[in-house]
Amino acid sequence: MADTTLDADVTDPEAVVDEYEEKLDDVLATVDDPVPGVDDDPRLELAGLELDRRDFLKAGAVTGAVGATAGCLGNPLGDDGSNSAGATQQSDTPDHSVPPGEHDQYYGFWSGGHSGEVRVVGVPSMRELIRIPVFEPDGATGFGHDDETSEMLAETGDVAFGDAHHPVLSESGGDYDGRYLWINDKANGRMARIDLTYFETDAITDIPNVQACHGCAVQSPDTKYVYGVGEFRTPVPNDGTNVDDTDKHWSTFTALDPESMEVQWQVRVSGNLDNADTGKSGRWAFATGYNKEEALDIQGMTHDDRDYLKAFDVDAIESALQAGRYEEVNGVKVLDGRKESSLNSGSNPIVRYVPVPKSPHGCDVTPEGQYVTASGKLSPTVTIVDIDELDSVSDPANAVVGQPKVGLGPLHTTWDGRGHGYTSVFIDSQVVKWDVETAVEAEKNSTDPVVEKIDVHYNPGHVQAVEGETTDPAGDWLVSLNKLSKDRFLPVGPIHPDNDQLIHIGDDGGGMELVMDEPVHPEPHDCVFVDRAKLDPATTWNKEDYAGEKPFVTAGKSGVERTGEESVHVKLSSKRSEFSESEFRVREGDEVTLTVTNIEGVRDIIHGVAIPQHGINLAIAPQDTRQVTFTADDPGVYWVYCTYFCSALHLEMRSRLIVEPRDN
Amino acid sequence: MADTTLDADVTDPEAVVDEYEEKLDDVLATVDDPVPGVDDDPRLELAGLELDRRDFLKAGAVTGAVGATAGCLGNPLGDDGSNSAGATQQSDTPDHSVPPGEHDQYYGFWSGGHSGEVRVVGVPSMRELIRIPVFEPDGATGFGHDDETSEMLAETGDVAFGDAHHPVLSESGGDYDGRYLWINDKANGRMARIDLTYFETDAITDIPNVQACHGCAVQSPDTKYVYGVGEFRTPVPNDGTNVDDTDKHWSTFTALDPESMEVQWQVRVSGNLDNADTGKSGRWAFATGYNKEEALDIQGMTHDDRDYLKAFDVDAIESALQAGRYEEVNGVKVLDGRKESSLNSGSNPIVRYVPVPKSPHGCDVTPEGQYVTASGKLSPTVTIVDIDELDSVSDPANAVVGQPKVGLGPLHTTWDGRGHGYTSVFIDSQVVKWDVETAVEAEKNSTDPVVEKIDVHYNPGHVQAVEGETTDPAGDWLVSLNKLSKDRFLPVGPIHPDNDQLIHIGDDGGGMELVMDEPVHPEPHDCVFVDRAKLDPATTWNKEDYAGEKPFVTAGKSGVERTGEESVHVKLSSKRSEFSESEFRVREGDEVTLTVTNIEGVRDIIHGVAIPQHGINLAIAPQDTRQVTFTADDPGVYWVYCTYFCSALHLEMRSRLIVEPRDN
Repeated sequence: MADTTLDADVTDPEAVVDEYEEKLDDVLATVDDPVPGVDDDPRLELAGLELDRRDFLKAGAVTGAVGATAGCLGNPLGDDGSNSAGATQQSDTPDHSVPPGEHDQYYGFWSGGHSGEVRVVGVPSMRELIRIPVFEPDGATGFGHDDETSEMLAETGDVAFGDAHHPVLSESGGDYDGRYLWINDKANGRMARIDLTYFETDAITDIPNVQACHGCAVQSPDTKYVYGVGEFRTPVPNDGTNVDDTDKHWSTFTALDPESMEVQWQVRVSGNLDNADTGKSGRWAFATGYNKEEALDIQGMTHDDRDYLKAFDVDAIESALQAGRYEEVNGVKVLDGRKESSLNSGSNPIVRYVPVPKSPHGCDVTPEGQYVTASGKLSPTVTIVDIDELDSVSDPANAVVGQPKVGLGPLHTTWDGRGHGYTSVFIDSQVVKWDVETAVEAEKNSTDPVVEKIDVHYNPGHVQAVEGETTDPAGDWLVSLNKLSKDRFLPVGPIHPDNDQLIHIGDDGGGMELVMDEPVHPEPHDCVFVDRAKLDPATTWNKEDYAGEKPFVTAGKSGVERTGEESVHVKLSSKRSEFSESEFRVREGDEVTLTVTNIEGVRDIIHGVAIPQHGINLAIAPQDTRQVTFTADDPGVYWVYCTYFCSALHLEMRSRLIVEPRDN
Repeated sequence: MADTTLDADVTDPEAVVDEYEEKLDDVLATVDDPVPGVDDDPRLELAGLELDRRDFLKAGAVTGAVGATAGCLGNPLGDDGSNSAGATQQSDTPDHSVPPGEHDQYYGFWSGGHSGEVRVVGVPSMRELIRIPVFEPDGATGFGHDDETSEMLAETGDVAFGDAHHPVLSESGGDYDGRYLWINDKANGRMARIDLTYFETDAITDIPNVQACHGCAVQSPDTKYVYGVGEFRTPVPNDGTNVDDTDKHWSTFTALDPESMEVQWQVRVSGNLDNADTGKSGRWAFATGYNKEEALDIQGMTHDDRDYLKAFDVDAIESALQAGRYEEVNGVKVLDGRKESSLNSGSNPIVRYVPVPKSPHGCDVTPEGQYVTASGKLSPTVTIVDIDELDSVSDPANAVVGQPKVGLGPLHTTWDGRGHGYTSVFIDSQVVKWDVETAVEAEKNSTDPVVEKIDVHYNPGHVQAVEGETTDPAGDWLVSLNKLSKDRFLPVGPIHPDNDQLIHIGDDGGGMELVMDEPVHPEPHDCVFVDRAKLDPATTWNKEDYAGEKPFVTAGKSGVERTGEESVHVKLSSKRSEFSESEFRVREGDEVTLTVTNIEGVRDIIHGVAIPQHGINLAIAPQDTRQVTFTADDPGVYWVYCTYFCSALHLEMRSRLIVEPRDN
């Protein structure tokens, strides 16, 4: 056992640090460089394999211990495309469990719909690792409770609210770079960003001229733009003067700068917009659209048989911007991308309108970037558009190269990197696997491209295969985000959970296998996955990241500073079992700014600050500082306590807010 | 690999030393007690160290190739009570998975700490089935967004907040009757009730004379009272005039009526109160207490070596109430239960003070109701009090009949119905199984009663065995609610999830087995389980349950009714794909009351109502009606849309709020 006592003079910091490092090195020397050249003892090999789950699985696959080889999957389907895919739970089910202490292979980021949050889920275990509040407050993390984050949420009224649908990840060089995640707010025309170093929402942008921001996509291979898709057609200006004048109603496609989160430009289009995706070369962005009719009610919106997939040519848009061919509306450079716009009339249109069956929904680009698909929703087909053809055809309709018939209510499509699409089929409650090249070669409306169908439970919305949005999908797991769960779980009252189902797609010989039902608080809307190797989150804060914005309060710098006749600044530091001040006194009516630093350096030693009857609730991770301002209206004693169970004396970790009567 | 950088301010020697010690501990934690049973190849030991001993042992266990079977399970322990209990994952791991479509055996109700919610978890799958918001709004279910529920949350300021710790279930005839769940709010001195027909919070009571309601218990075998335990000692009146006068500081034990949720009586006690439980005959309620010293800071609170377990004699309390021996304070009948009170001086004291080692924490009654235990926290023991003895001894100290030594930092104890207690031991990071009768027979401080220890990861708070709080625990599964997860999951930034670990305790021959790590959004505090056969929740609303309070709007009764010069009542009904009105017009400045009924009769067909830029968000289950009032300040068109993906035309399910300019 290493010597763990500290001999240096504790009044000599340098000596302490030196000794600390030396002793730590000694300890670590006993555990570094494990198991080199282990080949003569099978137990060592097994132990070593367990080091890395991927290796372990590989080993398992080789020996036949892991992997699903059984099953009906891969059997040819009948003419009607049906199979007996309900019987998918097999005796040799692929193992999705992650044993205690081991880590998942993938991060999944789930949007939480009108819970206004993003959820981080480990895949394949499907365990929710943490929630990241975005558009609504969260007491657990203190989001929306401190000054900085509550300001982000201020604009949606008394009860902050948002509707988060489509999470997308930043890319560099065509792969996820682990920096940011963006997500839309359908309820308020906003886009938000999550910093993936700290797993916290760090910016929310209110987009002018947009009432409902629905689809969401990033430029690929390098994220110079983040795209937000304005769905609802809304009058501009929206002042009550043109409520029925559909010509004055806009739907716009918005590009934001990923760093500043400022709007760079917008393109106004004909009809409504819906979901979006991007090509792989940086040039193209696509969005499905409905309501070509530009009607104001559902009957009108679904009247005609055709709608459009819209292809935004970013190069052409940038040229038009440079040529000054935009109008500034509510502070935004808006280009007219309507169907008959002069910007669309030449050889270099900014928006191409590709006709597809009416009310298409999902918009998904294949991994290699050759095709963009529009899932039919009200048509049983998926329309395949060859992206390169957009330049060579005079009529965009001729860029449509395939239209397989997959089932009733196709909503979204994802990819396995082996040439297959997987489409969620809402009405049939199935996920349908189909072969892309077969679909391009086949007649339109053919069911021949369909390889396999699997029942899901029930009514899937989004479907996502792991890293299916990259150029190199992992191809092992797929999740079907089902809107209804009905009888799949113990009943929990009239509000039912959704049902995320984990499906193994890893072995084409074996086909799809339903592995797990995961109940989810409403409404998980969509998700995106990234291999764990591509993220490197911080485990404690780096105070340099907020230096200048907030103080770092050490014990010696804490206390009450009166800043005005009716204002005080209270500074506290926190460490295990104690706040730096056992009490702090303010006067009735004071505006109190409370700044608290958690001076701990060790991960997972979090402290909270709650003050009864004041709604004060901060959560402060190691090396972080949070600040909240409130008015001390009621004289009395209020026990300030720690909400994170930090130590054996956590319950006694206390300070007292003493509000002295003003007339004292 | 442990974090080896030094983050403390090097000019602050104390901080450096603290951090040095912490980090060294972290590193050493990974090399302590390595690889039991592995002694024939030194490289194995090294491999084990690198793997992290948990993984290594597990790897061995899974393959059966490494000597992890050297686990102590079932083996007698040495005198020091230690064992090598890390080796708990065995080759024949009990199956906790629940296949797709099958139901869990138990409902678990988890408190969410300062997330202010209750979570419903299926056991043994550990899947979160749904969240039930209690003290904070939830966009997903619309809680805190409609008039009725936002009124319940109004009192805690701009951002509603609560700290939910201890869920308890209603009982009839000594068993769970499936009617209600109650939970405390530590942050605001409140108690809330969840209606288990609808799985919704239906009442929140603000308790006078209580600043922090911590412990929570129900009368058993029939729940005539619900008990809320006021923890913090607070001045009464709390007006800033007596901030340092500890005699004027109160801590009170409160009884509420389970139906009306009104406070029935309070007992003021000496010292602080903490956790609570009840006997099985209806007569006794118990609460641990600390700060016998009645000090105002942590040093004072932990000065003396003794504190008290307080035994409340409900029969005696009711007699004293009938005799009028109470004082009415802030509308509540308060009995003086302080140690020297005259109400405690006779042969029929209302509160008995049983001395126990200082700062006890958990308070737990054994299933048959014979003993109440106080877990030591700052003492390594659990103190066992014979409840019947309370009547026969003159000095309550003589009712203490056992005090097994279980480890460092015992916090809470639960029961398997086979004569064993399981105590969470915070500092040692273990769950310790001990034999109750052996503990009663043994000398105090003996480790002989300890049967087995198992490592948990890390620092457990509550520990609960399935139905461990009933007279007939199920005895199959136990959950350790661990405060720290550190490295157990993929890193998700500085705010770490907690770690709920599922442990199989079902077979005394096999001992305890760690089966699963479940990451949890902060802060799961405590839980309670009920067999699925004992609950019968509704799957749709019964409109009779709100008849008279809210209208049931059918399509024919919908429309806009002007109720005043500046107020309108808008009534809508909703069904798949449509609201009953495609638009509704109000005038600028109107107070709009919006009432929406979901006329669907089929379970899981939920409709939402969101209005952009107004923060309006309702979630309406089948046959339910919700109502929200807001002011229409801004002229314009706002698309009202459905937030629950209800049908293939969900996206088109729309109405329009048209706010006409007032000068029109």
